[in-house]
Amino acid sequence: MAQKKEIRIGLVGSGLMGRTHANGYNRIANFFPELEYRPVLKAVCSRNAEKVQAFAEQWGFESYETDWKALVAREDIDAIDICTPNDSHAEIAIAAAAAGKMILCEKPLARTLAEGEAMLEAAEKAGIKTTVWYNYRRIPAVTLAKQIVDSGKLGKIFHYRANFLQDWTINADLPQGGTGLWRMDVDSAGSGVTGDLLAHCIDTAMWINGAITDVSAMTETFVKERMHQITGKVQPVGIDDACLFHCHFANGSLGLFESTRYARGHKALYTFEINGEHASIRWDLHDLNRLEYFDHSDESIVRGWRSIHVTDGDQPYMNRWWIPGCGIGYEHSFIHQVADFLKSLETGEPCGPTFKDALQTQKVCEAVIESANSRSWKDTGAEAIG
Amino acid sequence: MAQKKEIRIGLVGSGLMGRTHANGYNRIANFFPELEYRPVLKAVCSRNAEKVQAFAEQWGFESYETDWKALVAREDIDAIDICTPNDSHAEIAIAAAAAGKMILCEKPLARTLAEGEAMLEAAEKAGIKTTVWYNYRRIPAVTLAKQIVDSGKLGKIFHYRANFLQDWTINADLPQGGTGLWRMDVDSAGSGVTGDLLAHCIDTAMWINGAITDVSAMTETFVKERMHQITGKVQPVGIDDACLFHCHFANGSLGLFESTRYARGHKALYTFEINGEHASIRWDLHDLNRLEYFDHSDESIVRGWRSIHVTDGDQPYMNRWWIPGCGIGYEHSFIHQVADFLKSLETGEPCGPTFKDALQTQKVCEAVIESANSRSWKDTGAEAIG
Amino acid sequence: MAQKKEIRIGLVGSGLMGRTHANGYNRIANFFPELEYRPVLKAVCSRNAEKVQAFAEQWGFESYETDWKALVAREDIDAIDICTPNDSHAEIAIAAAAAGKMILCEKPLARTLAEGEAMLEAAEKAGIKTTVWYNYRRIPAVTLAKQIVDSGKLGKIFHYRANFLQDWTINADLPQGGTGLWRMDVDSAGSGVTGDLLAHCIDTAMWINGAITDVSAMTETFVKERMHQITGKVQPVGIDDACLFHCHFANGSLGLFESTRYARGHKALYTFEINGEHASIRWDLHDLNRLEYFDHSDESIVRGWRSIHVTDGDQPYMNRWWIPGCGIGYEHSFIHQVADFLKSLETGEPCGPTFKDALQTQKVCEAVIESANSRSWKDTGAEAIG
Amino acid sequence: MAQKKEIRIGLVGSGLMGRTHANGYNRIANFFPELEYRPVLKAVCSRNAEKVQAFAEQWGFESYETDWKALVAREDIDAIDICTPNDSHAEIAIAAAAAGKMILCEKPLARTLAEGEAMLEAAEKAGIKTTVWYNYRRIPAVTLAKQIVDSGKLGKIFHYRANFLQDWTINADLPQGGTGLWRMDVDSAGSGVTGDLLAHCIDTAMWINGAITDVSAMTETFVKERMHQITGKVQPVGIDDACLFHCHFANGSLGLFESTRYARGHKALYTFEINGEHASIRWDLHDLNRLEYFDHSDESIVRGWRSIHVTDGDQPYMNRWWIPGCGIGYEHSFIHQVADFLKSLETGEPCGPTFKDALQTQKVCEAVIESANSRSWKDTGAEAIG
Repeated sequence: MAQKKEIRIGLVGSGLMGRTHANGYNRIANFFPELEYRPVLKAVCSRNAEKVQAFAEQWGFESYETDWKALVAREDIDAIDICTPNDSHAEIAIAAAAAGKMILCEKPLARTLAEGEAMLEAAEKAGIKTTVWYNYRRIPAVTLAKQIVDSGKLGKIFHYRANFLQDWTINADLPQGGTGLWRMDVDSAGSGVTGDLLAHCIDTAMWINGAITDVSAMTETFVKERMHQITGKVQPVGIDDACLFHCHFANGSLGLFESTRYARGHKALYTFEINGEHASIRWDLHDLNRLEYFDHSDESIVRGWRSIHVTDGDQPYMNRWWIPGCGIGYEHSFIHQVADFLKSLETGEPCGPTFKDALQTQKVCEAVIESANSRSWKDTGAEAIG
Repeated sequence: MAQKKEIRIGLVGSGLMGRTHANGYNRIANFFPELEYRPVLKAVCSRNAEKVQAFAEQWGFESYETDWKALVAREDIDAIDICTPNDSHAEIAIAAAAAGKMILCEKPLARTLAEGEAMLEAAEKAGIKTTVWYNYRRIPAVTLAKQIVDSGKLGKIFHYRANFLQDWTINADLPQGGTGLWRMDVDSAGSGVTGDLLAHCIDTAMWINGAITDVSAMTETFVKERMHQITGKVQPVGIDDACLFHCHFANGSLGLFESTRYARGHKALYTFEINGEHASIRWDLHDLNRLEYFDHSDESIVRGWRSIHVTDGDQPYMNRWWIPGCGIGYEHSFIHQVADFLKSLETGEPCGPTFKDALQTQKVCEAVIESANSRSWKDTGAEAIG
Repeated sequence: MAQKKEIRIGLVGSGLMGRTHANGYNRIANFFPELEYRPVLKAVCSRNAEKVQAFAEQWGFESYETDWKALVAREDIDAIDICTPNDSHAEIAIAAAAAGKMILCEKPLARTLAEGEAMLEAAEKAGIKTTVWYNYRRIPAVTLAKQIVDSGKLGKIFHYRANFLQDWTINADLPQGGTGLWRMDVDSAGSGVTGDLLAHCIDTAMWINGAITDVSAMTETFVKERMHQITGKVQPVGIDDACLFHCHFANGSLGLFESTRYARGHKALYTFEINGEHASIRWDLHDLNRLEYFDHSDESIVRGWRSIHVTDGDQPYMNRWWIPGCGIGYEHSFIHQVADFLKSLETGEPCGPTFKDALQTQKVCEAVIESANSRSWKDTGAEAIG
Repeated sequence: MAQKKEIRIGLVGSGLMGRTHANGYNRIANFFPELEYRPVLKAVCSRNAEKVQAFAEQWGFESYETDWKALVAREDIDAIDICTPNDSHAEIAIAAAAAGKMILCEKPLARTLAEGEAMLEAAEKAGIKTTVWYNYRRIPAVTLAKQIVDSGKLGKIFHYRANFLQDWTINADLPQGGTGLWRMDVDSAGSGVTGDLLAHCIDTAMWINGAITDVSAMTETFVKERMHQITGKVQPVGIDDACLFHCHFANGSLGLFESTRYARGHKALYTFEINGEHASIRWDLHDLNRLEYFDHSDESIVRGWRSIHVTDGDQPYMNRWWIPGCGIGYEHSFIHQVADFLKSLETGEPCGPTFKDALQTQKVCEAVIESANSRSWKDTGAEAIG
């Protein structure tokens, strides 16, 4: 076997996303053995020394840090993977860029458009490679959806609708802020479901269907006050518990988006549907190996929505896994992103979504929040993304 | 409008099936206005005078009888429709044939093969028109399944599987015999689920896939004794609560059938699936407007089971009803059978299943019971049916 | 049997809705025999004498008219049933009210709010009984949804979302206007999907979840010009091909609505979902006998969305029909409305939605169109409906 | 962290199952960090030196062998994992037992009951720990099904039905024998779908519902001759392409099983359903994260099959993985089996199914084949399994 090139990773953050990314790096050798680059888990960083040490042991990092600045300063690291709460994305990314590190950043890019712009500027100035973990693109059924649309099978697109429904914050006694609950604290998160969940929907939508040009949104905060885990005080809730918007895409199709954490019965129901002139597509994260497809050119008496079990070797990424009928899971989307990132080092192509791509999603999120606050339509200024 | 020819109906029995048939006749004028024949509800017969009078008023019968022999003797009746418990099918049918009446008989044809043979002999001797109410054939999705198979889309058939699962007799306190419960009494019913439910599955199967040649079966009676509603005594239960069998079809395909009234959660789950060389079909009575269809010739990356909503005008019978997407119900299968029977009077063609067809199903049922009792394979002697 | 009181019907219009209503009246004797009132099909009215005569024969009307004014003037008619295109609802209804007739009017109430207000004023002045055929309320699963919400099982409601998706107008060669296509002509229809489809969604929503207070909408006309069937000329298309809006309900919940005739693969996909604090509900017209229900109080390891097959005798209207597991169809919703209307004559209670109720839906529709045209939020002024 | 005890693995076979097992061992450190034992991938063995070396590199084995006897003879190996075609299971297992190695053997245990008995005898004589890779037991939804049945929620069991349907051998040009196709060659495989697919169904069934006591089966070989990949000659096909059987369980319930590789449209449709007095359960490998559950004690108007998305932390194994709503895949069942095997080294408990358990499944398979061949019922002699 030819000697592989190393890409030495420094991971910041050891929460849920830290685990999904670490798992992603660890699976490459087994499932993408042909890649020229191999990730080396050089160091993980988190504030609590005992916990980060345990994380490093569990996931096979060679070392650990408790200060991200120390991590960024290390010479033996090529790429910084940012898995921290949103409020530190910008600061870490800008420092990493300044240090000439590649950056793999969790989504959303930042809390605000301004932060995101600063990050992109820093990255472009440094000329570094970037990617943002909008992982759902790389679930095989979603990638197949993109492939189908790109093939022209749908013809002109009329409608794109997506929602991301959860129910984990209905309980009014749930606190906000701190470990595990920073998504409830507007200072840490920047926004509620808009940045956390709709950002995923927007990234997928613009990747498949082009730029969203203008939006009209509404938001709601159902529980107005929650105890803050860190201060111990009851404080106003600043995030959006729910966000709904409609919009235009640049290609003339209409978009409809909804997200909430108050949809009883839905754990993580991310669905989208695309209606075209000739065909339509539906997908649902809860049954992630399936893609539904309707083809109007089928003979009329036997025409119907097809339930495609996306587990065959000729479907995206599936030649890496098992046998037809045997599905894969959520975590595989992260493995695929690592593989694509490594491949992009070989080819020199970008590994979308880059910071620039993710900034377009940020523009839509910002316009959505502004639209909801002002009860008016807002132009997004977003460009098409790769 | 040209004057229509009358076909004067005498209905025996006023239970559930009496209602479905009466409704069938009543809908013809509205939904099949072009037919040359129109049914006239001349008389209904049932033992209880008060009840049968109310039934006649409700359903629009001109008169009523309390003795079926009186009904059969009436000159003003062209066709006898038999909706009584199974133990009177043979006697009534033979008398009706002798009187030269056409016969529309509820399924199963009879309690036993011997009874059925006598009925067929009487009908053939009298040269009368017959039909048996295996109504599920005429649910549009089922008729479409037949049409698809006949078109050759499936190629060689390998497998046919069907089941009919219910759960209404699990309660051991449910009595047997008498009104509403004669299906639990072997003297009235002849058998349990075999004649009541599997007979439907067998009729559909042989209509679509040809004759069943030999069977290997097992039966079970889970509750061994039940109070008899008429005698008031606890008596042995003589029916089969469950029946399972596998078989060969004449075309070389394998059949698998199961029926029970002890499948908790299933009200009337009649499903069948047919696997052919090139395509497969599935159907489920609980969602009767849908047919599932898999076509292996679809492009591989977008291949999957299609869920066909059988509500378009080019699908069987649906040009009679509403608009695409708006389904019909269980009762419509009976309306279609009346329409087809009336049409057969115009054309002179048989209206399957005739007594002869239904006798083939009876042969399979008898072989199934014998196989279960003897724990051995049995040849059925059944011929293909129309 | 006690002599029934007659309610003599004069039906205006003989299209699809004429058929569904006529069928509704014709089924009452068979399925609701206990009602004090019985509908008598006195006359049907339509412009083409030959066609209306055939319709009268097929559906059992005693006579026919070709001028609705003659029909309204007849002494032997108690109730006028309006099934004409939307542009004549107001004129006919106002005349019928002036003549002291009860009115059963197809939805939407009118083309515009102003027309609807005039109709309500006329009806109130005349003191007549009114009802509007928002038939989906009376599909058993939908009625059950209302019953579940009213029981308090959902607790506080957070979200209500509904859509009504079709695909029959995608073909740009489809003309507008005239028989069968008046829904495409803004002069006849008043609006496109808003009045035709969203009006259904809004009626159900306000019936179950209370008044919609303010809306933010967008509309689109994908095909800008179509040949007009009557003029034979290519003319601008004035209807909305698609309409999307979000809104607030008076109870604080958020609503999301979408309708289009450009959703390839959907014939008549009317769905709604309600998310409450404790439970959620979903329904889909394509599988109209099913209601999905999620109850958070179920034991956690076995908690999931329940698929309720609404065919048991203890579920709304189902004691009228067949046996558990055997579904009913689209047409039954109209039969139920006739039955409820007749029952309301006995009780003196209104049979919702009355003109007053339907006017609230009209207010929302008008606000939706205004909002879309002005790209701004609009208050609806709608009140709660019965 | 305390030093872990090593369990040094020698893997024989590098095909699909070699990959699933290797992946299983590789994931333990990340997902089951608390286990006392850690697997060490000491050596992998396969005949082709080049291929096995590549496999060793890809999966992280320290060394490789090309002769399994050399592997078994190595002192530095504690456990032999057998992933070879069925015809070598017995020889390797007996040698490994003689060498005092623990054994993890792919299913089915052996080609024949006689081979299996010899294997068990050798293992018992050697006093070694054994387990057989009936992996589907450890899909969380399946484990949950077992837990639900054991809890008594179903009450008395009436029915158990399972099938395993594939379609990959329909093409008559597919050869038999050799790499990738040894399952088609009776000498290598012992049987067709019976040992390959039904064995899985039987293991799950007896684990959940107790011993199968007697069977009545039929088999079919649809394509009678196929070219043999090794000899290059057209030879008779000795395997069963399809197998169907019904049976009794010791608890009085009835079983129905079917497997085929000729069910067009099914990639790997392993489903089972259990009907009990109070509740029922269904599962389907194609949607492996879901379990369907019907509880008759639910209030009648809102009673229905629940679709449980088995991805919550309180459901079996799921506290190891991600977040509610985010599913796992096929491969995880193998990871769970490794974890349970390692745990069993700590506790000293068996890790079912042991050789003794798997031999009971072998008894049923043998009785099934004998029953089919003799067209008669056969007692299985199988005991309950753990």
